Formats: sequence, C-alpha cells, structure tokens
Amino acid sequence: MHEIFDISMEKNILEANLRIAEDNEKKLKKYGIRAFDVLGSIGSGKTALIECIAEELKKKGVNVGAIAGDVAGDDDYKRFLKCGIQAVNVNTGKECHLDAHYIEHALEKLNLDQMDVLFIENIGNLVCPADFPLGTEKRVIVISVTEGDDMVRKHPIIFAQADIVVLNKTDLAEYVDVDPNIIVSDFSRVNPNAAIILTDVKHKKGIDELMRVLNL
Amino acid sequence: MHEIFDISMEKNILEANLRIAEDNEKKLKKYGIRAFDVLGSIGSGKTALIECIAEELKKKGVNVGAIAGDVAGDDDYKRFLKCGIQAVNVNTGKECHLDAHYIEHALEKLNLDQMDVLFIENIGNLVCPADFPLGTEKRVIVISVTEGDDMVRKHPIIFAQADIVVLNKTDLAEYVDVDPNIIVSDFSRVNPNAAIILTDVKHKKGIDELMRVLNL
Repeated sequence: MHEIFDISMEKNILEANLRIAEDNEKKLKKYGIRAFDVLGSIGSGKTALIECIAEELKKKGVNVGAIAGDVAGDDDYKRFLKCGIQAVNVNTGKECHLDAHYIEHALEKLNLDQMDVLFIENIGNLVCPADFPLGTEKRVIVISVTEGDDMVRKHPIIFAQADIVVLNKTDLAEYVDVDPNIIVSDFSRVNPNAAIILTDVKHKKGIDELMRVLNL
Repeated sequence: MHEIFDISMEKNILEANLRIAEDNEKKLKKYGIRAFDVLGSIGSGKTALIECIAEELKKKGVNVGAIAGDVAGDDDYKRFLKCGIQAVNVNTGKECHLDAHYIEHALEKLNLDQMDVLFIENIGNLVCPADFPLGTEKRVIVISVTEGDDMVRKHPIIFAQADIVVLNKTDLAEYVDVDPNIIVSDFSRVNPNAAIILTDVKHKKGIDELMRVLNL
C-alpha cells in the first residue's frame, strides 16, 4: 500500500513499536529470560521446531514458555500446552504480524518467574514481521525446502536481518526437486555472518546443532 | 498494527483501492479479458499452476498473460516468459500484497489486445491480500498439503472470501502426514458454496477439473 499510505504515519507506528520492544527486552532481561522470535511461512515447521527444542530443554530442567501468534485459531497454542510448557495464545484477527504491543500484553499473562526461555511464534508469513522487532534476543527464521530454492532471492530483506536461519524438512528435498545448497549459498551472500542450519524436525535431525548455535 | 493504527486511515486506503479495482475491472471487461487473482503462501505452487494452465490454454489458441507479484526478484517473471506468455514483473519492495494501483500500472505495460486470460500472481502470503481486491473475475487460493491440515482453521477470513481453492501437492500428503480430507472438510464449513479442487501440479493431476471449474 506504499503508494497511498502516509509515510509519516508508518514512521510513527514503527517508532512506537520500537519503544515497546525496548520495554519488553528490559522486562525479559530483568527476569533472566532468553527470548526468541520465530518467523516463517505457514507450514515451515515453526511449531514442531519449538516443541522439539522444548522437549530437549525440559530434560535439562530448563523452563520453557511460548507465545503462539496466529491470525485465528488455537491449534498451535494447544500443541504447546500438550507439550507441557506454559503458553499464551495471541490471535491478531486480520493482522499479518505480531508487534511489540501484543507481546507486552502476552507477557502479563505468563508466569515469568517460572520461565528461562521464551519462544514467540510469529504469524505465518515472511514479509510483514520484518519491520516489527518484539524485544527478543534473536530472530530465528524457519523455512522449508518445500518453499522452493528461490526463497532467499525473493525475500532478501528479512534474510539479511535474520540472526539465524533454519532450513527445515530436508527429508523432502528430493521429492520437491529442491537443492538445499542453492538456498544455503543464496543466504550466505545476503547475510555472510549468520548461520544457516539444516534440519529435519520430524526425524529430529539437526536439532543438536541448532541448539548449540542458539546457545541453549 | 491495529492497536496503534488509525482506523479512518485504513478505511481510506481500502476505499481508494476499491475504486481503482473497479476501474481495472472495467478496463479488463472492455478488452474481453478474463482475469484471476492467484493467492497463496510461498511454495504453494502458484507459479507452476499458472504455467501448467497457460500451456493447456496455448494449445487451444487462447492468449495468456501474467503479472508476477513478488517482494523482490524476477524468478517467477522469467518462468512466465520462458513459458511463452507475455508478462510484467511487479516488485513491491516491502509490501506484503498487491493492490489495485500496482495492477493499474501493470496493465499499462501489457498488450491487452493480444490477451484473453490474465493471471495475477499475488505476493506469497495468505493474510495481507485479503482486503485488497484487484478487479479480477475470481480469486483463486492455492494451498499445499505441506502447509498442514490446520490451514483453513488458521485463516478463516480469506478462505471464506475465496471463489475457488486449489489444494496442491497431494502427492506429498503421505510424506507430511496430512489428510487432505480434513482441509476439504474445514473449507466446506467456512465456504460451503465454493469448490475445492485437489491437484498435483508437478504430475499434472487435477488440472482438467480445475480448468472446468474456472470455465477455461
């Protein structure tokens, strides 16, 4: 909508978001909570990845929490509860991304004294969340080989901003004729300093390496 | 951004879009062009589907055009050219959806006298394009079984607005443990009058039925 959208209005929105994100960050630090913003398209495997890491962290006695962001529904939220972690469901209605304000309110509903690590599962799309930091330590982008080998070329901005990329569903690569090396190589060009980890969450492959990189 | 966004501003943007969409519709009708807005997440198979239908239409002597909408890059545009159809590339930069204004300008670049059917491939996400009609005859939503069986429950608004849904990559259903019947059944609940067609574009399955439903 850039052609019919007031630029100064957009600037105000982004600045307001940034201020609240900084407050969220301070609050999380105060409670000693490490928070991760997990971004990715629908079906990239965000929920499964968080479940998988949460299971591993639980074994180590680490308390995990999750904020499930979705336009509608509570499928992911229920999965988190079933996984035995405290969670809050955030439905945005028609909004295509979480913003810091949603997180501010979600944090009020969580028992922060009983939490060491927080995963925020953002709305399933790779475009809109780019401009809205939430106050987390890191932004993790999850993509799936089924999304095609042109993923990075189509979304250079969000990949350039990523702290870490998870390339998931590598077990399906041969079925969809996608060469993961092309994605890895494209990503290394737009973001040479960030790691890209290949995973197959369904078969729990690559999780150890990812957790090492996330220092979890 | 609903909490820090001026509602009247949003209303103005949507009304401006609607006016331009009506102009686009008139222009397309004047040239006798049937236009389809093709929506779906990254990797759902929108480009491959358009290529596949275009091949079939070419055999019938129907002139096809395409507008390739992407945040960045020209991968899809090049695929359309290779397919032998006239095409325009629209890069939105940071915008998460096409709007009627983009289409107005794209139409100026196409030879409308030499076109019977126009496919507009929207930006790859299922949330944002919902509010922005482009002036097309029908809105076709393409989803893939790899996106999970909770797709419709997570996006009830856009599915309720769809004229037709294509459930693609049915060949991968067993690898991702997704039962297509759940998606079909969820969709029939939110949109009982619209058709949902199962396709496997890679192996050209379901295309005939889809073309029948689209009256192509």
